[in-house]
Amino acid sequence: MTVSGRPARETKDLPARVRAWDAEDPLRGARARFEIPEGLIYLDGHSLGAMPTDAAARVASAAREEWGQGLVGSWNSHDWIGAPARIGAKIARLIGAEPDEVIVADSTSVNLFKLIGAVIAARGAQGVILGEAGDFPTDGYVAAGAVERHKGWRLKLRPAAEIAAALGEGADLLMLTHVSYRTGARHDLGELTARAHAAGALTLWDLSHSAGCLDLDLKGADADLAVGCGYKYLNGGPGAPAFLYVARRHQATLASPLPGWMGHAAPFAFEDAYAPASGVARFLCGTPPILSMLALEAAVDVFDGVDLALAEAKSQRLADLFIAEAEARCARFGLAPITPRESDRRGCHVAFRHPEAWPVMQALIERGVVGDVRAPDVIRFGLPALYLSFEDVWRATRALEDVLATGDWRVERHQARKTVTCGRA
Amino acid sequence: MTVSGRPARETKDLPARVRAWDAEDPLRGARARFEIPEGLIYLDGHSLGAMPTDAAARVASAAREEWGQGLVGSWNSHDWIGAPARIGAKIARLIGAEPDEVIVADSTSVNLFKLIGAVIAARGAQGVILGEAGDFPTDGYVAAGAVERHKGWRLKLRPAAEIAAALGEGADLLMLTHVSYRTGARHDLGELTARAHAAGALTLWDLSHSAGCLDLDLKGADADLAVGCGYKYLNGGPGAPAFLYVARRHQATLASPLPGWMGHAAPFAFEDAYAPASGVARFLCGTPPILSMLALEAAVDVFDGVDLALAEAKSQRLADLFIAEAEARCARFGLAPITPRESDRRGCHVAFRHPEAWPVMQALIERGVVGDVRAPDVIRFGLPALYLSFEDVWRATRALEDVLATGDWRVERHQARKTVTCGRA
Repeated sequence: MTVSGRPARETKDLPARVRAWDAEDPLRGARARFEIPEGLIYLDGHSLGAMPTDAAARVASAAREEWGQGLVGSWNSHDWIGAPARIGAKIARLIGAEPDEVIVADSTSVNLFKLIGAVIAARGAQGVILGEAGDFPTDGYVAAGAVERHKGWRLKLRPAAEIAAALGEGADLLMLTHVSYRTGARHDLGELTARAHAAGALTLWDLSHSAGCLDLDLKGADADLAVGCGYKYLNGGPGAPAFLYVARRHQATLASPLPGWMGHAAPFAFEDAYAPASGVARFLCGTPPILSMLALEAAVDVFDGVDLALAEAKSQRLADLFIAEAEARCARFGLAPITPRESDRRGCHVAFRHPEAWPVMQALIERGVVGDVRAPDVIRFGLPALYLSFEDVWRATRALEDVLATGDWRVERHQARKTVTCGRA
Repeated sequence: MTVSGRPARETKDLPARVRAWDAEDPLRGARARFEIPEGLIYLDGHSLGAMPTDAAARVASAAREEWGQGLVGSWNSHDWIGAPARIGAKIARLIGAEPDEVIVADSTSVNLFKLIGAVIAARGAQGVILGEAGDFPTDGYVAAGAVERHKGWRLKLRPAAEIAAALGEGADLLMLTHVSYRTGARHDLGELTARAHAAGALTLWDLSHSAGCLDLDLKGADADLAVGCGYKYLNGGPGAPAFLYVARRHQATLASPLPGWMGHAAPFAFEDAYAPASGVARFLCGTPPILSMLALEAAVDVFDGVDLALAEAKSQRLADLFIAEAEARCARFGLAPITPRESDRRGCHVAFRHPEAWPVMQALIERGVVGDVRAPDVIRFGLPALYLSFEDVWRATRALEDVLATGDWRVERHQARKTVTCGRA
């Protein structure tokens, strides 16, 4: 990441209260587990999490020692074969699930496909999937594809505020992204799960913007199914494998529509007929990408000893600070928050509208503050608790003010539009 | 990989002809591109290819520099976003396809699912998939799952020798693994494709045991569809992402049953409605595991300047030598080849039956010769041309003779059965 112009770290006038918050932060030590370029304030962890030092070390040694020296024997000697369940169990702790309810496999999109297909097959010829209009596109694509193939099924998309009421009209599956990729607004997972159950529907939560930043409790919420992404707040690396959760009570009755050999009851018996594994392992399909899996594992291990309640609370305070400072400094330049102000109604990123979102972000990146943009006019800043400080947020809002006040974003190089930065939203 | 006992390299009496073959081998320089443990003869590249030195270096720098320093910007600055098509184009050269006919994505199993689903959707309510009985299980599972969901479709499995005749009875899709994972027998891809077309069927070839070792010509054969694995003869690392081939003439009419955002015509427009990308990119689904992708890319780059006709010819000569020496030395101990003797009827591994396959292989591994076993009684040796020598093969057969002649495999430690070594068959 090229950082030029005035480094964000140069600001001299950090208020004492901000300094004090960092000094008292019980998670302040976690930052040392990450490698973040000097002088950079990285607020794009909702798109691609920063790199844990151990993740880079692990992937390098997984290649050089485990693959290079151990060769095929490492499937056993380094337990590559156990990686999907082993890493799944580690993620389970972070989302309030039992260790045998989570498995790491494939991408979020593919896992959504498996779970939607499994529910459709279990529920029968007719049914309704209820989802949110304007939710992350891939979720909608997969659901729309599923109902297209199953003619008796319908997909009903409603605005967030109408979801609860729409459940009253009946549904078989409520499928929602817990935290909106655009606004950062959070659904009440517990309440909507209870309402869904009362309406006779199962729930499928996409935790891509929740896992690793919010203090999730799938068990307490009695959630049925979930998927989530490994490369945002779990910091598993670009395109890290995704995870999939199936509550124990559904594991015997749901079957994956993607029957592959790794989900077989006895993968190494090479039987001609498919017999699904017992438990959540039946939702495995092909051979997992081990190098990316092990980077994810090292990243998840960074959460060892981290209390996610503290992490969530810190992220919310970072968000409060960001919104307050941004409003005080930047409202006069047309920057308007679209993230809810109530900390229990949002995830761990804050979003703003600005008509010149793209060039503003380019100018900000040049100042060493990295957020991102979602077309046409949304600016997002991710606030993971493990590697950010209150000082980072304070400096970021100062830099944002500077960009807007100086009109720097008007210069030509910031207007030039490249491919929008990627990572699953 | 622990190597103890008598190292295979100690054998002193290497015949002059074997030495001469290595001296004249035009590919002898390629071995330097791999890191293989000292003293080891690695004959399991049909399960997990050996590690190219560049692959380990690339994955380490992809983590440390591209992810760690470049962060989310690397989707553009290091063209992560272009990786599926870029690596696909490199693989295309190795299988005789056009650069825009191949894409890297997901696993072989998932890619099979996409292509079978696409054909079923394109062909209509009724149809027949013709496949081989005893083919690699995941292929059968995916096909069986597909016909279960599409009631008008049937899956016909026939022994290899009856496939051509069965095409005469009519089929919509001929789906075959080009080279059998057990016996190493190879189908005539060109002839069966022509017969399939004459019968009105499309062809879907699983090239898992062909790509990177045989001189494939999908274009010359007019092949329709193919998938293949990245971690065998392509040496892409454990669980490396797979590839998928769709002949240009089918790209506009076939649609993936797994519609994810990466296969959208405009992934970063975040449109609510799915519109498939033009070309083979429509068979992408979720975000790809970049670290594993880049290891695969470096591995595929090892083939730069390698003439696959030479590689195939060398592997076949290695196979001739292996079978001849093994028969001469080991037939009296009950070892019997099951791989065809004709070099154009086999892939690049040789397989034998032995009633004590498992303990024999354990004793052989202890001597520094690594092959593998498929239950109950098949011993396999992979013979990729890039990192093996004639001397390796000659020494391996000597070690095999030694194991069988001494009866070493009878000792207790070789009888103990662990999880069968893995990697997609």
